[in-house]
Amino acid sequence: MAYSTEKGIFISFEGIDGSGKSTQMAIAAKYIRGKGFDVITTREPGGTKLAEKIRDILLDNALGGRVTPMAELLLYLASRHQHSEETIVPHLNSGSVVLTDRYADSSTAYQGGGRGLGLDLVEGLNELVIPRWPDLTIIIDVPIEIGLSRMGNRRPDRLEEEGTNFLKAVRAAYLEIAGRHTERIVVVDGSGNIEKTSAQVIFTIERFLAGINRIGISGG
Amino acid sequence: MAYSTEKGIFISFEGIDGSGKSTQMAIAAKYIRGKGFDVITTREPGGTKLAEKIRDILLDNALGGRVTPMAELLLYLASRHQHSEETIVPHLNSGSVVLTDRYADSSTAYQGGGRGLGLDLVEGLNELVIPRWPDLTIIIDVPIEIGLSRMGNRRPDRLEEEGTNFLKAVRAAYLEIAGRHTERIVVVDGSGNIEKTSAQVIFTIERFLAGINRIGISGG
Repeated sequence: MAYSTEKGIFISFEGIDGSGKSTQMAIAAKYIRGKGFDVITTREPGGTKLAEKIRDILLDNALGGRVTPMAELLLYLASRHQHSEETIVPHLNSGSVVLTDRYADSSTAYQGGGRGLGLDLVEGLNELVIPRWPDLTIIIDVPIEIGLSRMGNRRPDRLEEEGTNFLKAVRAAYLEIAGRHTERIVVVDGSGNIEKTSAQVIFTIERFLAGINRIGISGG
Repeated sequence: MAYSTEKGIFISFEGIDGSGKSTQMAIAAKYIRGKGFDVITTREPGGTKLAEKIRDILLDNALGGRVTPMAELLLYLASRHQHSEETIVPHLNSGSVVLTDRYADSSTAYQGGGRGLGLDLVEGLNELVIPRWPDLTIIIDVPIEIGLSRMGNRRPDRLEEEGTNFLKAVRAAYLEIAGRHTERIVVVDGSGNIEKTSAQVIFTIERFLAGINRIGISGG
């Protein structure tokens, strides 16, 4: 099944930088809110006071090249556990729809695939720190050239200076993860314009919500 | 065996705050240096630029009570991996004696025992991030009342404000860990004065070095 029967609805948006996932999540939030649901949006790394401090470390250009892949992974996992316990779980328990810009699959794609730690290791460690997998994960997939060009004038942080081979490995890992978890993950082609992509995102969410309605979980 | 046949010699000092482990490590460093060895001293959490930043987060009173035990553990593990790769491994590879004030057993005792995550879980995660276990670990054991009284005027940081039940659980975990790994860990009674304790520490190190000499690894 493509949804959880636990309280709340948990949806993650994934993709490489410049894929448009943040924009698409904002559009999706508005759409779901319009259906009468209580919608909370959050992001990783971040979402809590501790997580923001960890984010500052992770995105610090001055540490570039000096953080081991394993240390980087563990920092993301620490941030994720705090974010899950402090923000995501309480909102799910109160029945909200929680949308997050990046979650566990980001670690699997970036550290497991991009940094070469391996998808299995990272999925196993994710299991240890998350309360539950998202009910629905939408991967906005774009060729890395499009992602990079969309980053345009945004000043690249440490993670975005990695170069194209790294990003290619991340994108490939995302697609492999999607193939492993077809019950949860939908890949949306993000190479078109915002409207074209959001049409697919909304369609995916519509279909997901229809599935939930069939088993009797109602919105607002 | 109580030593490694790999390059270098790796010794960790463990115990609750106020046990005197830092003082004893300094005395031990001087003693081992006097034997002609090249000795490096380091500490956790810390020992690298990244680790010092993580240490700042972990010891921040403003975050008191808001860091989940699992996030705390993962931050220590991140710091440990960076510290191991950046500082400990290179010095061991060049044949030095590396002494560290706290290492993997601190996580097992504090987060596994004190915070209740369980010794097995933490030892398993430690295995994932450390290049090797210390060749010798000296636990300076004191009743918590002695530890607390020795802290005296030192301003308690977040970790030291935890209260006596937490420290009792940490001390008990240290002793359980020692029982699990008698080939590596020696418990020294630190309740006497500095000289009395250091006599036992030096005796332990003498015996350890004698074991190494028997298999042909020489000092300086």
